[in-house]
Amino acid sequence: MKPNFCLRLRVFNLNCWDIPYVSKHRADRVKRLGDFLNVESFDLALLEEVWSEQDFQYLRQKLSLTYPAAHYFRSGIIGSGLCVFSKHPFQEIIQHVYTLNGYPYMIHHGDWFCGKAVGLLVLHLSGLVLNVYVTHLHAEYSRQKDIYLAHRVAQAWELAQFIHHTSKTADVVLLCGDLNMHPKDLGCCLLKEWTGLRDAYLETQDFKGSEDGCTMVPMNCYVSQQDLGPFPLGIRIDYVLYKAVSGFCINCKTLRTTTGHDPHNGTPLSDHEALMATLYVRHSPPQQDPSPVQGPPERSSLINVLREAWTELGLGIAQARWWATLAGYVIGLGLIFLALLCILAAGEGAREMAVMLWTPNVGLVLGAGAVYLFHMQEAKGLCRAQSELQHVLGRARETQDLCSEPQLAPLLAAGGQS
Amino acid sequence: MKPNFCLRLRVFNLNCWDIPYVSKHRADRVKRLGDFLNVESFDLALLEEVWSEQDFQYLRQKLSLTYPAAHYFRSGIIGSGLCVFSKHPFQEIIQHVYTLNGYPYMIHHGDWFCGKAVGLLVLHLSGLVLNVYVTHLHAEYSRQKDIYLAHRVAQAWELAQFIHHTSKTADVVLLCGDLNMHPKDLGCCLLKEWTGLRDAYLETQDFKGSEDGCTMVPMNCYVSQQDLGPFPLGIRIDYVLYKAVSGFCINCKTLRTTTGHDPHNGTPLSDHEALMATLYVRHSPPQQDPSPVQGPPERSSLINVLREAWTELGLGIAQARWWATLAGYVIGLGLIFLALLCILAAGEGAREMAVMLWTPNVGLVLGAGAVYLFHMQEAKGLCRAQSELQHVLGRARETQDLCSEPQLAPLLAAGGQS
Repeated sequence: MKPNFCLRLRVFNLNCWDIPYVSKHRADRVKRLGDFLNVESFDLALLEEVWSEQDFQYLRQKLSLTYPAAHYFRSGIIGSGLCVFSKHPFQEIIQHVYTLNGYPYMIHHGDWFCGKAVGLLVLHLSGLVLNVYVTHLHAEYSRQKDIYLAHRVAQAWELAQFIHHTSKTADVVLLCGDLNMHPKDLGCCLLKEWTGLRDAYLETQDFKGSEDGCTMVPMNCYVSQQDLGPFPLGIRIDYVLYKAVSGFCINCKTLRTTTGHDPHNGTPLSDHEALMATLYVRHSPPQQDPSPVQGPPERSSLINVLREAWTELGLGIAQARWWATLAGYVIGLGLIFLALLCILAAGEGAREMAVMLWTPNVGLVLGAGAVYLFHMQEAKGLCRAQSELQHVLGRARETQDLCSEPQLAPLLAAGGQS
Repeated sequence: MKPNFCLRLRVFNLNCWDIPYVSKHRADRVKRLGDFLNVESFDLALLEEVWSEQDFQYLRQKLSLTYPAAHYFRSGIIGSGLCVFSKHPFQEIIQHVYTLNGYPYMIHHGDWFCGKAVGLLVLHLSGLVLNVYVTHLHAEYSRQKDIYLAHRVAQAWELAQFIHHTSKTADVVLLCGDLNMHPKDLGCCLLKEWTGLRDAYLETQDFKGSEDGCTMVPMNCYVSQQDLGPFPLGIRIDYVLYKAVSGFCINCKTLRTTTGHDPHNGTPLSDHEALMATLYVRHSPPQQDPSPVQGPPERSSLINVLREAWTELGLGIAQARWWATLAGYVIGLGLIFLALLCILAAGEGAREMAVMLWTPNVGLVLGAGAVYLFHMQEAKGLCRAQSELQHVLGRARETQDLCSEPQLAPLLAAGGQS
């Protein structure tokens, strides 16, 4: 590769709010999105919440000349909602469905039915290996009482691990999506600390768009005050994150967001704002690499965030076990009640009532059984994430201890977070 | 690394048949397994079907001096049953739970409740990066009418993809486990073709053990004729597979299996036979690399197996949709019947019967709803694997077409399967 190698990447990201029977003006917005993407001709357009496969097929056809490569990530019952359109061919495709993703009985929230996931596309551009990740994490329905916090932290950890383990030969890593986390939220810090990904909004030389880079803003006619909770001016939960490794450097020349309207000042394309980033990847001799090996202060911030995530998952495990225990008691009481109903049915006095109550009680026992099994599985999933964190924490602590002996630091940098 | 570098790895693999309340002589077998592993002092002991976490903790304590590193992979409701004991520390740990793993209503088979998975441990040995995978796929309960075939093929594909994407910087890849597939089964061929893994039994210079390397044999007192189905002499479904990349070569000096007894001729350690392999990893200059780039004949066998897997998944999708449709009809009929019951209850004649039938009918509708959702999710999961296969197939075909023009072959080898 030439020493003056330079690659420009124009990237588009949008949570499309494309939910059949629920989202307003869906067909019109999808049509206008297609027109806009065709006109702008980005290198990559990454979309979330495309929960209608028909809409994906419509876009695929409409964009086929400008974006010859396209992929829809299928998962769960409804689907992950993730899809990608690209000017450049995909070399490889894989996806990972998050182990934990809310509760099936929270039907009105619906996340569990989607099978939220992270999709990976490997592209080869001018000899450069580019790993593109697109994801959508569990929504936050209440900031004050967020019952999904442990699940979102576990998802952020799975996402970070997936990126860490699948990007070892990538020159450039790009992650776009709706993380449903504010920039300083625990899961967001965990993801950035463990992968080394940098936030385009914080790094760009030239930003134009909504105030503070918010991606849900009150000016958007599809956004209600309830969606913004205690942040009436808007929230930033959609991201373009990136890093370069092995002798390359990447920077974000410009970052644009829509501002509650369609890019041409019409009705917005979605209830989220679109992100449009222009990234430049350049050759960078190893000694000029802008991502130096982490020294003790950075390691200590990694350790802090790992410890905090470990604690949060611990609270989630306790909660899951509490629900499983409660369901266990309900099963026990239901079985005792069933036995009593059998005795009553054998007698004469209350036979009719006993027979009437038999079936609802069987339903109760079966329902409680399902709840018990679900929360046992939830506890196992959280324990799994916690034990992986525990392992990383142990290794990070070892490295930190040994880094205090300067002659050992280079030896350890290779074995720790890479 | 020295040119005469040589690393010896002694590996043990066993499906332990450690199922609380079900498996015979469990405590005694686990104790004897611990004693044996301590005496033999392998580099790595990979175990499947350890479905009691207490037994893992017992082994962890018992083996702590010989195998200081240990990990238990938690998932699903019961657990993946996978665990690893190692003489050498783990640098990194991650696991992937298979998207499809049987049916929750097949309670007597139980696989769905386990959360079958693949676990990965990254080890650094004398400067060499070793990726160790351990897995257990869905059981085969009937060879003649295998209702889980599509799921097992999808699992084999997910396993192959997980290895492919997470081992790109590994020098040596080792996969052990109970694949529940015979050596020439579709899933097994798919796994080997896509990852390039080689079978220790077929490659070893020195094999001693059960006839044809079988890992379930009739001499084992825990094995019934039913377990062996149409193979009364035994089946080979547990494997040690490996490959070396980037300037290393690996070979299997010896492979031993138990032969229906404990290694000291007592009661067997499990209903499966243990595998004990001695592997040697040597430095190999690139030109002597024993895994040459795949030429057209190998590509054509890859294309054939991809095509066959694609077809098998297609049959699975049709079946899943059939069940979803059937469940849809049951829901429809159940709702009509509920409406009729409402009318009857409003009248005088059959009010009592209508009230009696109301709750079971609601149960039927809810049950059919759950079946519908499950099979919709199954179809999505199979479609996802099929679309990944389709993509690889497309790329492999392109490569094959271009490989027929010899001057283009080297160019393509880098972009295809690596």
